[in-house]
Amino acid sequence: MDDPGELARRLVTGDRRALAMAITLLESTSPDHRDAADELLAALTPRAGGALRLGLSGAPGVGKSTFIEALGRRAIGDGRRVAVLAVDPSSPTHGGSILGDKTRMPELARDPHAFVRPSPSGGMLGGVARRTGDAILAVEAAGFDLVIVETVGVGQSEIVVADLTDLFCLLLSPGAGDELQGLKKGIVERADLLIVNKADGEGAAPARATVADYQAALRVVRGAEAPEVLSCSGLTGEGVETVWARVLETSADRSASGAAAARRADQAARRFRAELYDAIFARLGADGRFEAMAGEIEAEVARGSLPPGVAARHLVERLTFGV
Amino acid sequence: MDDPGELARRLVTGDRRALAMAITLLESTSPDHRDAADELLAALTPRAGGALRLGLSGAPGVGKSTFIEALGRRAIGDGRRVAVLAVDPSSPTHGGSILGDKTRMPELARDPHAFVRPSPSGGMLGGVARRTGDAILAVEAAGFDLVIVETVGVGQSEIVVADLTDLFCLLLSPGAGDELQGLKKGIVERADLLIVNKADGEGAAPARATVADYQAALRVVRGAEAPEVLSCSGLTGEGVETVWARVLETSADRSASGAAAARRADQAARRFRAELYDAIFARLGADGRFEAMAGEIEAEVARGSLPPGVAARHLVERLTFGV
Repeated sequence: MDDPGELARRLVTGDRRALAMAITLLESTSPDHRDAADELLAALTPRAGGALRLGLSGAPGVGKSTFIEALGRRAIGDGRRVAVLAVDPSSPTHGGSILGDKTRMPELARDPHAFVRPSPSGGMLGGVARRTGDAILAVEAAGFDLVIVETVGVGQSEIVVADLTDLFCLLLSPGAGDELQGLKKGIVERADLLIVNKADGEGAAPARATVADYQAALRVVRGAEAPEVLSCSGLTGEGVETVWARVLETSADRSASGAAAARRADQAARRFRAELYDAIFARLGADGRFEAMAGEIEAEVARGSLPPGVAARHLVERLTFGV
Repeated sequence: MDDPGELARRLVTGDRRALAMAITLLESTSPDHRDAADELLAALTPRAGGALRLGLSGAPGVGKSTFIEALGRRAIGDGRRVAVLAVDPSSPTHGGSILGDKTRMPELARDPHAFVRPSPSGGMLGGVARRTGDAILAVEAAGFDLVIVETVGVGQSEIVVADLTDLFCLLLSPGAGDELQGLKKGIVERADLLIVNKADGEGAAPARATVADYQAALRVVRGAEAPEVLSCSGLTGEGVETVWARVLETSADRSASGAAAARRADQAARRFRAELYDAIFARLGADGRFEAMAGEIEAEVARGSLPPGVAARHLVERLTFGV
């Protein structure tokens, strides 16, 4: 692995190989790489943050790749540079990543204005979130100004993607209300924009009906905060122009109102808190006696014989801290 | 304040004055009371956990008090002992608690099988959650087997209530889809049961329409996981029987499937994690140098000049830990 400072310098000049290597370093779960990864991150961060971060989720078969190709090409037509990252915390026992194949988006994959990064291999969701958050910084530092973070919505991955992005879009199939949408509880609530894909040919009429159904349903459950529902066809490109225009308008409105900055600040604060917790427990966990003590106390909490707060304070009383 | 062991012994025999004093001790934010409160909690916990914990939220004016009176009396008719607790993190600047008045529920307040606890005075939401969680344990140890935790939904208080209870119910007014429901984004998603109140007299027809609107909307946005939508009148009592029956059925189903135990275990684990975090930072924060260091690093994160993960690891590296 190169020196992190040198890697950062090459990356910001647009060296794609350096970008790929940087993401590989940031994705590494080896403790040996942690210091180099942190040095790289610190070097990249001042140049990051400038992209529009667009989250995208949708069940398998909804046409995510085709839609991303269409939207990405449209954005490139506007002079954007587009990076596509995937969050896919699938475990090896489930057959590994289904997002890992660049051939899913052949046009973007060979476009000099785009960068498609296959999904890192499975792992715990917290780690996936961290690695994807770091990869966003890397592609931003490399000059990409539209980052699309996609997920198939395994486990809680949609929540992770919503937490990493400025605008979270949910892609739907024509055919509202049927359970084939494969949507998990809570996810429609998180969406900033719903997009019914495959609104072409025989799909056009069902797509219109789906848009109307979701619009009506969201007005009931979310009132004034109901997100917009659009339709398009990633295949024919119809409606993609409108989707892109709405994404830009929403993004501009939120920047003007301060909501965009507030969302990023909130994401950073929560990430800091989570990382602080992880870092402290990584340090404590290195001491086998802490592991044993914590395990014993956690078991008492799980049995209901010790309230969580009392248990936590007991455990912390037995530790020493210094600054 | 009495000795915690003695207070616990009196409480479990049904001494209402001991129960009220115990909750006051648990609600105390004074560090001087923490050890006594923890001793009390540890004594009560083995006798707690036996109640059905029912969360209830609804905008001001939806008829929560009247509904709780009706449902509480129905449950008492079944031989239940009913405790009503409130989560109301309103700040003094907003005029203080609107849930603090026992006269809101005059019948339950004087019923020997019921215990109505006015809301503790305002404070940070995390603290309110902890105190309410502790109060639940106390009323359970005192033999109450239905605990109703209500909130008007200020800030994120509905999320707190959903996280503290087995079943979270949302009370609505007749008149779906209009913004007068005062529902916040995300809250319909958390509901296990929706109840349209005031289904009496001129409200009967709009209530039926509201039920139908929500049923249809929830089928679209939540599919097979859509919660049931019922109507009733807290005032006339009509439909309250059905609501009570559905609460019991849902609770029994979830106990049988293991979902109820899983939800409690998840709540306990998250609470333990949050309390551990708080306890560690209370200890660290006692050292002024940590506060200064953390403040400096947090400012760098907020400015975007340091990534959250790197910042967290920098901070933790400068600490020492021991077991």
